[in-house]
Amino acid sequence: MSRTIGILGGTGPEGTGLARRWAAAGEHIVIGSREAQRAAEFARLMRERLGGAAPVEGAENSAVVGRCDILVLTVPFAGQATLLKQLKPLWKPGQILIDTTVPLAAAVGGNPSRMLGVWQGSAAEQTRELVPSTVGVAAAFHNLSAELLAQDGAVDCDILVCSDDDAAKKVAIELAEEIPGARAVNGGKLENARIAESLTALLIGLNVRYKVHSAGIRFTGLPLK
Amino acid sequence: MSRTIGILGGTGPEGTGLARRWAAAGEHIVIGSREAQRAAEFARLMRERLGGAAPVEGAENSAVVGRCDILVLTVPFAGQATLLKQLKPLWKPGQILIDTTVPLAAAVGGNPSRMLGVWQGSAAEQTRELVPSTVGVAAAFHNLSAELLAQDGAVDCDILVCSDDDAAKKVAIELAEEIPGARAVNGGKLENARIAESLTALLIGLNVRYKVHSAGIRFTGLPLK
Repeated sequence: MSRTIGILGGTGPEGTGLARRWAAAGEHIVIGSREAQRAAEFARLMRERLGGAAPVEGAENSAVVGRCDILVLTVPFAGQATLLKQLKPLWKPGQILIDTTVPLAAAVGGNPSRMLGVWQGSAAEQTRELVPSTVGVAAAFHNLSAELLAQDGAVDCDILVCSDDDAAKKVAIELAEEIPGARAVNGGKLENARIAESLTALLIGLNVRYKVHSAGIRFTGLPLK
Repeated sequence: MSRTIGILGGTGPEGTGLARRWAAAGEHIVIGSREAQRAAEFARLMRERLGGAAPVEGAENSAVVGRCDILVLTVPFAGQATLLKQLKPLWKPGQILIDTTVPLAAAVGGNPSRMLGVWQGSAAEQTRELVPSTVGVAAAFHNLSAELLAQDGAVDCDILVCSDDDAAKKVAIELAEEIPGARAVNGGKLENARIAESLTALLIGLNVRYKVHSAGIRFTGLPLK
């Protein structure tokens, strides 16, 4: 596999977890952060955990967009629009951006089991507006517990993938299925990200009510393994 | 069990399916319809299917509210507000209403995998507004395929129950667990019905994309059997 996957905001728990799982699956990873040095340090720690030769590097977020074919956005919603506006001039046609952000009310100090209304309908559709139309956008990985990702075993959940771009959807599905235990489910159009995103708020509420940390979702009745 | 469960709009596929499952579990059921005769005919057919002695009757919707402790609203969203306004004077304190309606765009001729925006946030919260405050309201059964309900075996899905009323939530959880295979999941406050409802739109889309009829949802990572 020669592709390079950049994780924008990759020093948070979701970004770190995804990066480590994909690096373990043999992907070449570039962890992005606002500070190059912080990104480099996270990359070093991840190489140590994975064994020295793992292809994990770190870079400032802008440099990550310059270097990678596939970008995964894992910043909190509060930082999403600001970062995407800053990165806008840097995109090249054919790049793929996978958005994992969820507009939780926590972004404005509210309850993390409640959603903010995003004018475009979802964080993913806002992302779609904030990158050039030549970039393929998919939404995925909203419902994957960072806590499960951080562990070593298989996860027990499905990954809804929503996109209007065939190439972006295909890549997001491939990446979902590189995580042991995860199963990609075709969530249809990008606009359906609003449902996938709201599921995260529901899962956060379930974690609180049931005193657990890794509630997830599986779909039944589908002709999938 | 001496309680009586009335199914408002109980001649549709979801209402019929729920009625039959609960009658099979020993509940006393009154199927409601706009026309008493139609309701009586559905009840007769259901008694035949269940064996003659099953406690299933039929009545006009208003009469059902007059006779039952627990009401389950299974009309399409297009008829929800009209029916509830008509029934408003008939409620007695302590009655319980379980809302199953989903504001699919199909209600106004749109795509059934898209949602309508309801001012109150969800069909269930609209229902809450349209019945007296002395009636306990819960939202549940949105994500249970009518096709699965109509079969004889166990279903393979969880039932999210959302309510601000402890008694209503308890009854909805009991009724969910009377359906073989179903597992009740505490979905928190009634306002979370907006997420449960939107899941139905997602499941309808999955049915279309995967060419199946009974996509469902299970939650993982919860301390439940």
